[in-house]
Formats: sequence, C-alpha cells, structure tokens
Amino acid sequence: MADSQKETFILLMSCPDQKGLVARVARFLYEAGANILHADHHVDPEANIFFMRIEWEAEGFQLSRDDLKSTFGQLVAPLGMEWSFHYSSQVQRLAIFVSRQDHCLMDLLWRYRAREIQCEIPLLISNHMEYGPVAREYGMDFRYIPITQETKQSQESLEINLLHEYRIDLVVLARYMQILSPAFIQVFPRRIINIHHSFLPAFIGGNPYRKAYERGVKLVGATSHYVTEDLDQGPIIEQDVVRVSHRDTLEDLIRKGRDLEKQVLARAVRAHLLHNVLSYANKTVVFG
Amino acid sequence: MADSQKETFILLMSCPDQKGLVARVARFLYEAGANILHADHHVDPEANIFFMRIEWEAEGFQLSRDDLKSTFGQLVAPLGMEWSFHYSSQVQRLAIFVSRQDHCLMDLLWRYRAREIQCEIPLLISNHMEYGPVAREYGMDFRYIPITQETKQSQESLEINLLHEYRIDLVVLARYMQILSPAFIQVFPRRIINIHHSFLPAFIGGNPYRKAYERGVKLVGATSHYVTEDLDQGPIIEQDVVRVSHRDTLEDLIRKGRDLEKQVLARAVRAHLLHNVLSYANKTVVFG
Amino acid sequence: MADSQKETFILLMSCPDQKGLVARVARFLYEAGANILHADHHVDPEANIFFMRIEWEAEGFQLSRDDLKSTFGQLVAPLGMEWSFHYSSQVQRLAIFVSRQDHCLMDLLWRYRAREIQCEIPLLISNHMEYGPVAREYGMDFRYIPITQETKQSQESLEINLLHEYRIDLVVLARYMQILSPAFIQVFPRRIINIHHSFLPAFIGGNPYRKAYERGVKLVGATSHYVTEDLDQGPIIEQDVVRVSHRDTLEDLIRKGRDLEKQVLARAVRAHLLHNVLSYANKTVVFG
Amino acid sequence: MADSQKETFILLMSCPDQKGLVARVARFLYEAGANILHADHHVDPEANIFFMRIEWEAEGFQLSRDDLKSTFGQLVAPLGMEWSFHYSSQVQRLAIFVSRQDHCLMDLLWRYRAREIQCEIPLLISNHMEYGPVAREYGMDFRYIPITQETKQSQESLEINLLHEYRIDLVVLARYMQILSPAFIQVFPRRIINIHHSFLPAFIGGNPYRKAYERGVKLVGATSHYVTEDLDQGPIIEQDVVRVSHRDTLEDLIRKGRDLEKQVLARAVRAHLLHNVLSYANKTVVFG
Repeated sequence: MADSQKETFILLMSCPDQKGLVARVARFLYEAGANILHADHHVDPEANIFFMRIEWEAEGFQLSRDDLKSTFGQLVAPLGMEWSFHYSSQVQRLAIFVSRQDHCLMDLLWRYRAREIQCEIPLLISNHMEYGPVAREYGMDFRYIPITQETKQSQESLEINLLHEYRIDLVVLARYMQILSPAFIQVFPRRIINIHHSFLPAFIGGNPYRKAYERGVKLVGATSHYVTEDLDQGPIIEQDVVRVSHRDTLEDLIRKGRDLEKQVLARAVRAHLLHNVLSYANKTVVFG
Repeated sequence: MADSQKETFILLMSCPDQKGLVARVARFLYEAGANILHADHHVDPEANIFFMRIEWEAEGFQLSRDDLKSTFGQLVAPLGMEWSFHYSSQVQRLAIFVSRQDHCLMDLLWRYRAREIQCEIPLLISNHMEYGPVAREYGMDFRYIPITQETKQSQESLEINLLHEYRIDLVVLARYMQILSPAFIQVFPRRIINIHHSFLPAFIGGNPYRKAYERGVKLVGATSHYVTEDLDQGPIIEQDVVRVSHRDTLEDLIRKGRDLEKQVLARAVRAHLLHNVLSYANKTVVFG
Repeated sequence: MADSQKETFILLMSCPDQKGLVARVARFLYEAGANILHADHHVDPEANIFFMRIEWEAEGFQLSRDDLKSTFGQLVAPLGMEWSFHYSSQVQRLAIFVSRQDHCLMDLLWRYRAREIQCEIPLLISNHMEYGPVAREYGMDFRYIPITQETKQSQESLEINLLHEYRIDLVVLARYMQILSPAFIQVFPRRIINIHHSFLPAFIGGNPYRKAYERGVKLVGATSHYVTEDLDQGPIIEQDVVRVSHRDTLEDLIRKGRDLEKQVLARAVRAHLLHNVLSYANKTVVFG
Repeated sequence: MADSQKETFILLMSCPDQKGLVARVARFLYEAGANILHADHHVDPEANIFFMRIEWEAEGFQLSRDDLKSTFGQLVAPLGMEWSFHYSSQVQRLAIFVSRQDHCLMDLLWRYRAREIQCEIPLLISNHMEYGPVAREYGMDFRYIPITQETKQSQESLEINLLHEYRIDLVVLARYMQILSPAFIQVFPRRIINIHHSFLPAFIGGNPYRKAYERGVKLVGATSHYVTEDLDQGPIIEQDVVRVSHRDTLEDLIRKGRDLEKQVLARAVRAHLLHNVLSYANKTVVFG
C-alpha cells in the first residue's frame, strides 16, 4: 500500500461472517465505477468474524463521499457491519506526547518531513520543558504539561481539551513515561498508540531493559500497541526484536532497543494512518 | 492458509487489470453458494496485471467441479484471464531429486510424514546410489540415475518418462547438483523448484559458500526458485539469511546454510502445494 | 569454533576479576607449548566476574592431561577460580527425553548422524511408548517410562539410575512434557537443557502458543535454557523468534514454532557440547 | 564494548600466527599494571593470521602513552606485527559526504548528539547546496562542492585539502552518489566508509533497488564497507536485510531500505570508532 499521489478511497469493514459479503461489497463498488487497487480480506476462523479493506481510485468513481457513505450504510445495515470510510487526501492530525527521551520523537519528525508518514502534527505535549525549539522547527505548537500525583487529573483535562481544540485524530506516545488514566483513554478508544520497550507480554511495566538484562535474555524487543485501560495490555500492532549477548551491557541493550523502538513505532503509526489496522477482541488485523 | 481438514476449492487467476474483476468473480461464487475463506488480491501497478486467489468451502457449493470449470471458463474468457482450479483433497504428486547431501531431503520427508506438506511422494531420483533404504522407509520408489556428459541426454529422457509414468505434478530439486537441460525444463514449466545455497542473485553458480566466505559477507542466504533455462535466474519463491561473522569458517557457513536451505525450500514447496504462488514475468506473487 | 578434526584442549574459567588473569593463564599455556586457536574473554562489569575460554592444539602441548590439571589447579587455587578442562576427543554422552512430539528429537538425531553435534546418544527415554523403532535405527536404548502422579517419584529414581548407569553427561529435554522434580534436577545441575516453546519470560508454563495466539503477538519464539528448580526460569542459552500475522491460526503458530524449537535447541546443545557456555547467577556467557 | 566514561587504552594487533602471542602481549600489559576489560582474539585458520584487540583501564596503568608505544613496538618488532594504539578520550574527527538523500546524514547526526557515536564532526561536504542550515545547527562547516566530469579532478583535490586541513580521521559517505577516484581513495586507505543500498555482492553499481525490484527478491539489504578502488568491492563491515513481498512497490523497497541503510551505516561507523574493526585481504574482523 504505497503512498500513491493519486487520490484513493478506502473502506474498512468487519462483521459476523456470512456468505456473499465480498460479492455484495465488490458489486456495490463496481456499479459505482470503482477501480480497485487493493482488496484485503480476512476471516478469523475461531471468532467467525469477517474483515475487509478495499482501496480504490477516486478518479472515475461516480458517488460523492456523502452519497457513498449513505448508500453503503444502507446496504450493510442488515449485516451488523462496523465500517469506516477514508480518503487518502484526508489529512489526519497527530499529537505527540514525549518525555525525556527524544529518539522516537525525532525519528517520527524525520519521517513526517520526508512524507513517509502522511499527516499533520500540530501539537507536541511533554512533561519536560525542553521541546520548544524542536516544536518551532517543525511547525508544531508545544505545551509543557508537567504531571504530579496531585495535578494529574486537572492536567489530563487540559490535555483532553487541547486534543479536542486541535482536532487530533491520533495520539502517539513516543516514549511518554506517564500512565494515562482510564478517563483519558476512554475519550480516545483505539486512537492512542504507545511504544513499549520490550517484547510484550515479557517485561510489562517499568524498567524493561533492566529486567531483560537481569533475566539474561538473548533478544530484546519493542512493541507498539493501542492503549487500553490495562497497562501494556492493549492490542499489539507491531513488534520486533534484536539479538543481544552477554557482551551487551544494560546501556547497550538500551541503545540497541532505541533503534527498535523507533522503527516499531513508526511502522505502527504508518499502518494506522494508511487505514491498514482493524482491531477486535484484544488483537489487530494489520493488512498490507 | 491453514491445512484445514475440511475440503476447500481454490481459484488462481491473473489477467490484465480492469474494473469489475473482483465483483465478477465474487458474484459468480456467491451465486453458486460459496462460503469464502480467503480472498487474496494483488495488482502489479507497473505491469497492470490483476492477480487473485480465492479459497472457499466445498460444503454448500452448488456446482460440481466440472460445471464450475466450464461455467467459470465461459465467464472469464473475454477477459484474457489465465486461471486454474484446485481442490484441497486433490493429492499432488512430488518427485524429489537429490545428490550427495541429504539434509533437504530428510527435512522434507519429516514434514511429509508430519503432514506439514500435504502431498504424495512416490518417487526419489538420485545420481548417488545410497538412497534405497530411506526410499523404502517412506514408501517411495528409488531410481539411481547417474549422469555423465555422455549419458546426460538419455538419462534425462529416462527421468522424464519416469515423471510421466508416476504422474508427477511437481519436481523438487533438494540439493540436486546436476544442471537440468533446457529440454527437460520445458517439459515442466513452473513445476520444478530448486534450492540454491546463496542469497540470489549473489553467488550464482557453483560453490556459493566458498565465494561468500572469500567475499567476507556478514550474512549467508538461501533462495528457492522455479527452475528456468537460465541457471539460478528463475522466479524467486522464498529467500532467507542468517548472520555469520569472521569466526565462522567455511564449514560453519555450510552448516548454518543447511538450516536455511531446509526451511527456505520447505516454505517454497508448501506455498506451491497450497496454490499460494502465481508467477509472471520473472517474479512471483506469494499469497498467504 | 569449528569441529576441527585435530584434537584440541579447552579450559573454561571464571573467578572474581583481578589484574593479571589473562597473563597468568596465557603464560602457563605458552610455557607448556600451547598453540592457541581461540581465546575468549569476558568480564561482567556489574558483578565483576572474569570469564575465559581457551582452546589450543593438543599436538605439541607438553603436559599430559593429568599433569595439566594438577599444575593448573595449583596455579589458580589462590584466585578462587572455578575451572574445567575438556578435550575435543572426549565423547560426551547424551540422554534425550521426549514426549508425544518428535520434531526436536528427529532434528537432533539428523544432526547427530551428520556430526553437527559430536557426542554419543546411548539412551532415549519417553513417557510415550512408540519410540522403540527410531531408537533401534540410531543405536540407542529406549526406555518407556510413563509418569503418573503416584509413580512420579519412583519413576524418576529409575531414570536417575539409568542416567548414572549409562554415564550420561547431558540430559536434553526435546519437548518432554513432564516437569522434573527438584530432587531430579539437583542431581544434574546445569546438565539438563530444555526447549520451551515461547520467548521466555513471556508465556511461562503450559500452552504458550495458545496464549500467544490469544494475546495477538506478532512474533512467536522459542527458548533453550538450563533447567533449574524454578519452572522455565533457568539460565537462557539461546532464543529466537519468527514473524506471525493475523492470518496465522493457532496451528500455524505451532508449525512455525516447531522450526524455531528445532534450531534453538540444536544451537544450545551444540554450544554446550563445544564447551562454549558458562553460567553464573541466572545467566549464561555463550562464547563462539 | 560499551561507551564507558572511564578512560581506556586499546591495542589492535595482527601478524602471522605463532605460539606465545597472547602470552607475550598479556604479560607485557600485566607488568605495566593493566586491568584488562576486553580481550578479543581471532586466528584465521586458512590464512594463519593472528588478530587481537585488548582494551584496558588507563587508571593504574604505569606507562605513558609514548612509553607504551616505544616499548610495545620493540617487543613485537620481531613478530612482523601490524599494530595500532588508541585511547578512548582521543576524539576522532569525521567528515560526512552526502548527496540529495539525507536520511543517513540525519540519523548519524542524531546519534552524534546522543553520544551513540563518540567523535567530532567538523565538516560536511555535499554536491548539493541545501545543507548549510543543518551544518550550522550541528556546528559543522559546510562546503558545497559540485562535481562534473570536467571538474572532478580539481574538486577532489579541494576535498583532499579540506580533509587534511580539518585533520579528518574518517570519511563517511552517507549516501554520497559520486564515485571517488583511485587517487582520492589512496590518500585514505581503510578510512572511507560507504553505505551501499543492496546486499553486496548482489546489485553492484547504480539503481540497486530497481534491480532488486525487477529480480523479484524477497529481501532487500544494505552493506557498509570500506571504500577501495574497485567499486562496491571493499571489505564489508556490516550488512543487514529486511523482508519485502510482491506487495511492495519500488518506492516501498526504497523506504524500507532507508531504515536499513541508516542502521547498517551507523553500526559500521560505531564499530570503526570503537576500534573494533581490523581489515585484511578483502575482509574484516569485527570484534565486540
């Protein structure tokens, strides 16, 4: 699923599986003149759930976006289908949260500028104060929002207000070391992506590299997942590992892990922005 | 694409891309009562070629295999489509060719017995004579067919006759160190799979590990490909690599490479047997 | 560290780090005429422990094995050094324990016959009865030792006696699905190697693939470790992972995992047999 | 080999192998009071060459750097040894050459600032003019040196003069798309590191991703090597690969390759700066 310059339309669908779903969707699109670029399909054989992602060229398609949505909605209403419609020129708006470590942030910003991830990033939030200059350089507004146990609730309210004000579609926790409250998370279901610096479910919680070092593992990992109310338990979008040995000190693990974290988070954010991710139960389907 | 116990039907398709292909195929199948398990789709954006693989349950499908073939053939005739129909209970017949090194052979036979690859293997051919006992153990007929420059043509004729006699669908060169003649290859287009012990196109031809050792590479690889008349140039089905270092001797490279060769060949054979591979130009589309 | 045909001698050493250790050991060996092939050294900077492995040619070395041991023992006695002496022609004796799944067993036996792992395997033990023929084929004695809650203690006594009787140096649990009692484990400290079918410490205990499937991980792993009294908590020798996706069923995870398990266990056994592994705290140093 | 804050001394050695080399070196260091942190040793068994790298703490060592060099030089003069002495506080000076693509440059600069690579980078040279601002931001001088066929010789002379003027120890070609002349290369033997965007020796020369795309490979790679007069033929320091599929367009290969290139180049530069690399014949020994 490349970053074609041509405008494309995308439908993401899931519903209880039954016969004729592909035919119904494909026929609907064909009759409206769609030239299909990608058609991805999956059925979870245990849960019996149907998933589909179709991407087609806007050019030559005969329905307006609004007509598409109303017509398609009527078509699939009897099927119990959850669906969403997206178009590639629709610029999604990201807010990045970061703490002391800036490697994921700087990596995302390089990819943002290089158009590897296509979005707007109007807002950078940190509980550390030093990110003003980098925010300015990339055209982002910066908010320094320190968190203490006492101020957490009010500061999170401030953050939620900011996210609404900036019309943020996706929150990216780029090594943000504060735990978000359930109240915050519920406002952005499946719209907060975190990077955890271990191969989840190994080493949940704090200091995973220290734990990995002490356990003597031969690989360290990183995991990008949607944030849910259960710490480090949300649906996994992407994971990767790198080999380590007895020669690697704790600092080496952290250094090698940084490269993983950057890539794993970037792949997860890119997949989300390309509408390649569907989540269900506590899992994801990642097409592409 | 698991090895479901339930009977499934499979269509593999490719043709010049145009609007409505997915809709046409899906509608046809729906009207015949198909319950689709897997629908895989790809368009090569440069060559503008459409590829599709659909797998559905035999149970509840209302056309006989013959009716399906004739009706579907009529439907897609105007589209210039190449297609093939398969069913999961159809037992494909393999012949394995092997020379001195038996690691790929023994690995395939273990997977054969464990039903990781579902097929029959009635015939084992080697230019070395020692494979009688293993053939007997696995219920294969064994033919010792030594090759010299003088006898090559006649021996290949003998081999071709055997392959016909045993109704062989797929020839697997499991470290067979003879180069097949163009005449042989033309009889089995896209039906001979080889394992080459390098990351092609690096180290084409003989002694790739020696060449890799002398070049000082930091990874060695293995490549499984369909055999064409150009040595080591056929469409690649699967590749993988493993890390090596200055500590690894030539023997270490060979040993590490064996593990790669076994897995890469097994994955390619499995993908072929599951009808997951479509080839075009000098490439493959490998679904699943 | 290749499987050189020439006889080599090996010293494994560990002690509190201090100045002059390398010099002392190297001088001792030089004065006895050693031609060093491999000298591996490591200092754990947190625990301040020195590790060394030296391998040299037997040819030209001027001390007998017994003289070496007594002289070297005197040399390092004041250093608080733990050390062991090995020679490459010393054939280590393995016992393999297996349950229903035979993939690790058959893989080890192929490597055994191919001399990838150099040892004798005189004894195969299983709580399943079907391994007689394979044992005969590979020249092993087979003992069928079923375990129930009631018989566990007496059956383990029987096993321990067998291991002594066959002068077993290393026990390999090649997917043996019984938990060994602490009493058994204490008889063979750091001499029992297990393969666990997950990336430890994720998915400790039973059914790790089912747990991995339900957690929706994007990689599955395997871990080979020395067995200690804490289940799945012993020092890790080797780990590896393979990528999976939403398309992979539980059966696919198990199938992909089998390839990992085979390789990870074989690498761990080979490293142990080559005297490349030193363990301390709950970790390993794996040279080579 | 971590980036310890403590000053360390390093000896890199190679010579024809013979008995007593480890003992001689270790004794020399011990007598001068060295506390050895890392002792790495390798013998090429085919070429019969000895390699060693020893790193020890400066603290407590009783020879001055100059005395060490003269004394050690006398010791090993009869052995035909090539050796070099380094100390960790010695700041190596890099010049980076870059063309249009800045991903490797920006990655190196992030690591430079984060102290993942410890050096000074006083000079940035490009045949493109847009790098002034980034040079200023990182405190580097920037020289825009366009190259045409006519000006190549004189421009290279200018570059060589600059490299001397800035006392450059290592030239890093961070996706610099000009081929250096033999005259240039001879001035900096084993001191120019390039990143090639393929798994060498596959796809030597220009447009490797296009070639990889057309060959239908299932992995793309990157290779970092010392530059010699034979294009893309120099000793390989580091390589890595990433999996691709039929779904990946040429642009996807390029995007995925960028991540590889960044990491592979950074690892090679880091290994060189830590004095972990010895080269001989057309290979490298990379310790650590």
